Amino acid sequence: MGRVVVEVMPKPEILDPQGKAVVGALPRLGFTQFSGVRQGKRFELEVDGEVTPEILEQARRAAEEVLSNPIIEDVVAVTDASADAAVPQRAGLA
Amino acid sequence: MGRVVVEVMPKPEILDPQGKAVVGALPRLGFTQFSGVRQGKRFELEVDGEVTPEILEQARRAAEEVLSNPIIEDVVAVTDASADAAVPQRAGLA
Repeated sequence: MGRVVVEVMPKPEILDPQGKAVVGALPRLGFTQFSGVRQGKRFELEVDGEVTPEILEQARRAAEEVLSNPIIEDVVAVTDASADAAVPQRAGLA
Repeated sequence: MGRVVVEVMPKPEILDPQGKAVVGALPRLGFTQFSGVRQGKRFELEVDGEVTPEILEQARRAAEEVLSNPIIEDVVAVTDASADAAVPQRAGLA
């Protein structure tokens, strides 16, 4: 089964209240290294067969027309992620 | 300036109403190739200097403890994205 990952972020000039909330919370919780945070969206689109160039193009159009709001958001990546593990890999915390 | 990207997805066994809404909408809008959609989150953490192994480790801890809810979400990736363009690249639609 194929998979396309679509990544969407608020445009740089758009206020991002969720990111602002996170960047305010991090130092209070001991995470002092981060000077800015932006929060966006990540979609996984499942495909029954292989991810062909046509399907990737359809995913790009869906990303621009359905998955993002082009007034306030940028589609930053549309990627064939079929090779990745079917179950999400953990971040590898010890 | 460095940047760490954190990607968070709902656990596979958790109902994802946003993803369900999208997968229902896509075929009505002409996108018929996608059999499933899951919606998660993507964070960009800015760092003033370089992304050292220590900062990446701090980002991993922040991802598990602040940016995700470990009961319902998995941290699927914590990546040094400093090499990426400072402005989000468009998906390259013609």
